Amino acid sequence: MTLSARNRIAGTVTSVQTDGLMAEVVVETGDGQEVTAIITANSVERLGIAVGEEVSAVVKATEVMIETE
Amino acid sequence: MTLSARNRIAGTVTSVQTDGLMAEVVVETGDGQEVTAIITANSVERLGIAVGEEVSAVVKATEVMIETE
Amino acid sequence: MTLSARNRIAGTVTSVQTDGLMAEVVVETGDGQEVTAIITANSVERLGIAVGEEVSAVVKATEVMIETE
Amino acid sequence: MTLSARNRIAGTVTSVQTDGLMAEVVVETGDGQEVTAIITANSVERLGIAVGEEVSAVVKATEVMIETE
Amino acid sequence: MTLSARNRIAGTVTSVQTDGLMAEVVVETGDGQEVTAIITANSVERLGIAVGEEVSAVVKATEVMIETE
Amino acid sequence: MTLSARNRIAGTVTSVQTDGLMAEVVVETGDGQEVTAIITANSVERLGIAVGEEVSAVVKATEVMIETE
Repeated sequence: MTLSARNRIAGTVTSVQTDGLMAEVVVETGDGQEVTAIITANSVERLGIAVGEEVSAVVKATEVMIETE
Repeated sequence: MTLSARNRIAGTVTSVQTDGLMAEVVVETGDGQEVTAIITANSVERLGIAVGEEVSAVVKATEVMIETE
Repeated sequence: MTLSARNRIAGTVTSVQTDGLMAEVVVETGDGQEVTAIITANSVERLGIAVGEEVSAVVKATEVMIETE
Repeated sequence: MTLSARNRIAGTVTSVQTDGLMAEVVVETGDGQEVTAIITANSVERLGIAVGEEVSAVVKATEVMIETE
Repeated sequence: MTLSARNRIAGTVTSVQTDGLMAEVVVETGDGQEVTAIITANSVERLGIAVGEEVSAVVKATEVMIETE
Repeated sequence: MTLSARNRIAGTVTSVQTDGLMAEVVVETGDGQEVTAIITANSVERLGIAVGEEVSAVVKATEVMIETE
């Protein structure tokens, strides 16, 4: 199974908060950066997402913006 | 100026390809992961995005998915 | 700090509702049009978004659709 | 026909650029703000979008970010 | 009224769950596939979305990914 | 490998058009509905997406809108 989404950032889940229909999942990457995902509570349960698990944060390239300083 | 978008992944631009209205920008993070952004060619020009520059890839949390193995 | 997102609509916050992880922020523009944003409650708190504040609603161009009559 | 998307910003098309599969449409609102949409060239043709036409820029609330100063 | 969004999948609403600001709407298509939408509770109320209703799930083409096996 | 995205619509690729950085892929579902995806040309090549192939169109639930008549 391969997905067209270009971005797949590997890391470890450091926080999962579920509230009603939605959930907030925080993933810490190898160099200590954090990626936060808002997904459905249904997906957290279905995939068994939990603190300490190795996952990837996946993002379609058209959803990424660039910020310069 | 502060933006509500939760994800800001710092890195160095390693590739900029412009074609017509659109552009593809690749950013390499500190631990060697790549993030690809599709933005407008107009924004690449307006922000002066170029290879070697330090930028951040910015993503709204609702656009991030989680993949488990 | 400059962001590649093309759309930045200035206005005044007229409503902020927070419920669990999510928040709904309504911004009224100069000509009386309303823009509604769903962002995380965390961002509302982090940015101190409150009624009466001058803010911009920011949208990536790839997220905008056009409707004709 | 009614759509769940919360944001509908009325304005006049001031620019349409088509290049290959994609098109960039600029809409100017009543108070002189510009909204830029990247849509498919197919949709520009199908809807007959042209300079001078009255249209609405439509955006789902989950796609809107808030920026404070 | 015509919208630039390319995807319009017809079906019947089989579930509506509202919790706070957000709602989850499930639509079953003619060949038994399910499409799930997260929209605002405000839109569910405004459009009167209810189980058994004929609706369309609408998605902008830039939001669709392709998965191969 | 499991992805949090809730929507996975199975079908057959009926058209692939590549132009510069972007590509437009049309998928026909079992009951004859069409789903159009704008993805990068890079992904079309990397996944070997071609007419006649069985694929799934994948969409995050937060990207889906509902339209009533």
